[in-house]
Amino acid sequence: MQEIITLDYGSGGKKTSSLIEEIILPLMGNDILDELGDAAVLSGAEKLVFSTDSFVVSPYFFPGGNIGKLSVCGTVNDVCMQGGDPRYLSLSLIIEEGLPMEDLKEIARSIADTAKAAGVRIVTGDTKVVERGHGDGLYINTAGIGTLKSPWLSKRGIRPGDRVIVSGTVGDHGAAVMLARNEDLLTGELLSDCAPLREPALALSALGEDLRIMRDPTRGGVATTLCEFAEGSSFSIRLDETAIPVAPQVASACDILGLDPLYCANEGKLLAVVAKERADEALGILRRFPVSENAAVIGEVRDEYPGKVLVRTRIGGSRIVAKLAGAQLPRIC
Amino acid sequence: MQEIITLDYGSGGKKTSSLIEEIILPLMGNDILDELGDAAVLSGAEKLVFSTDSFVVSPYFFPGGNIGKLSVCGTVNDVCMQGGDPRYLSLSLIIEEGLPMEDLKEIARSIADTAKAAGVRIVTGDTKVVERGHGDGLYINTAGIGTLKSPWLSKRGIRPGDRVIVSGTVGDHGAAVMLARNEDLLTGELLSDCAPLREPALALSALGEDLRIMRDPTRGGVATTLCEFAEGSSFSIRLDETAIPVAPQVASACDILGLDPLYCANEGKLLAVVAKERADEALGILRRFPVSENAAVIGEVRDEYPGKVLVRTRIGGSRIVAKLAGAQLPRIC
Repeated sequence: MQEIITLDYGSGGKKTSSLIEEIILPLMGNDILDELGDAAVLSGAEKLVFSTDSFVVSPYFFPGGNIGKLSVCGTVNDVCMQGGDPRYLSLSLIIEEGLPMEDLKEIARSIADTAKAAGVRIVTGDTKVVERGHGDGLYINTAGIGTLKSPWLSKRGIRPGDRVIVSGTVGDHGAAVMLARNEDLLTGELLSDCAPLREPALALSALGEDLRIMRDPTRGGVATTLCEFAEGSSFSIRLDETAIPVAPQVASACDILGLDPLYCANEGKLLAVVAKERADEALGILRRFPVSENAAVIGEVRDEYPGKVLVRTRIGGSRIVAKLAGAQLPRIC
Repeated sequence: MQEIITLDYGSGGKKTSSLIEEIILPLMGNDILDELGDAAVLSGAEKLVFSTDSFVVSPYFFPGGNIGKLSVCGTVNDVCMQGGDPRYLSLSLIIEEGLPMEDLKEIARSIADTAKAAGVRIVTGDTKVVERGHGDGLYINTAGIGTLKSPWLSKRGIRPGDRVIVSGTVGDHGAAVMLARNEDLLTGELLSDCAPLREPALALSALGEDLRIMRDPTRGGVATTLCEFAEGSSFSIRLDETAIPVAPQVASACDILGLDPLYCANEGKLLAVVAKERADEALGILRRFPVSENAAVIGEVRDEYPGKVLVRTRIGGSRIVAKLAGAQLPRIC
């Protein structure tokens, strides 16, 4: 733990984990928070899923979306991944003095449109304004509530032999935002995948407990999410590099920018671990929806090297995949 | 509506209303959001109250509290005012690069302590870090969920003859934060009233429908909250200036700073409108709790001047109280 906060602490990787484990959990931990899911399951007459995210993406308009669309998708998807059917959102704006009203209106329109598409209603909110030089145009927080449909989802359900599925190409959002920061490189062909995952996520729940866990690999990418699944477990996850779908324009952008698509954020993709014998059925379900039509099996769960994620490379070698260390892409979401 | 956002839009007064009415509601309005309460009542097997607030108070340590304590109290109180018993909180941090780790730890401790005192559990969260110069140390968002105990609360229940009660001295938080920005004036005698209102709010629900409405007069103060009650109604609210409790140190600070305590934020006070014949009982209930031991009747609801708030001044005159126009106190919460 350092003396001051550095950008690394916002990476979603090791440093972010250390902040949560060393400062937050010792003070506020409880059986629900300790799960460290992207959403919490609440008890009551009806089981609820509750999640929150703040969005600080820079720039706030990017190819394929903007901070408004992102702030709805991000929270809706977190609720879905925890087995919830998202119903209600809160919306809180931290606006920097000087934000053009036109930008705010366009972002508000995106929020409204995306909420409608995702089947959620915005029911409460808040607005703050900070002076110039104390923000960056607009930061947005959303919190979401859904009703729990798949209560069994947990990394504790993962078994050796299970298959790892991704719902489409990886790294699109991260690469699109990074390109948006380098205007010379913008080609118009590379768009963020930012989209609500409600339909495929709810459909997958038909697999029952053969659907072990779902997660949307946002900040830190597919690599970091899979490391979180494997961490502290008795199994490893082995990925097949040739099976991981990467759009050609994302591969090129990552080459130019020195990024690895496995660590690039996604905002409209899900990772699912399913029982081996239901993997084809899961692919069939996902491919019914445009948002997940390029779903693919990318790896399997094995009983060797407990706690590790390995990738079998194109040339037949094998390497360990570590959790993101440091801030590869600050303010990507 | 101006071309760019100015600080006025964050005041909690007229400009904030215009932003919500002209940009947010036309795009995202629905029967729940249109209520524009500080929290939403959700339907389900069990009725829930849901609220959110972002906190950008400057400085983030102030006499009597800090941004962490405030971020728990603010949302807990909004849930309580809507008739909810608060149970769960989300916590989302937007940290500026360079924040001292010690400050973060102290604030996290306050969050944990205040949540415990308020009877809520923090169950989900998020952490983002922005570069130096794009924040101001720390911004916090919390969202809260409670179970609905007093479903009848609404300004539609207010009737001529009803009494307006405040749970203690007004303006403490606003004055304390403003003093904290002027070190020369700091005396150590003036503290923010920042506190959870769960106990008095739940106790008042014993009045049934004779408790018409509750609200915590934060940004914009008592004046702005009462204007919101009266707006568009068929009644007026008449305050008695001599009955409004103001701590002497707050009165002095406001004199020096050119502020009106009626417009200064409170973070541990509630306003309640109750049936005339239950006003004494309501005072008795409130005075049982240390946080509301200085409760007082400060005005009444009348059938003249519909939609207005008037104050009968010390010297016997009468003036109209308007909603806060412009940013009297930016970043007070």
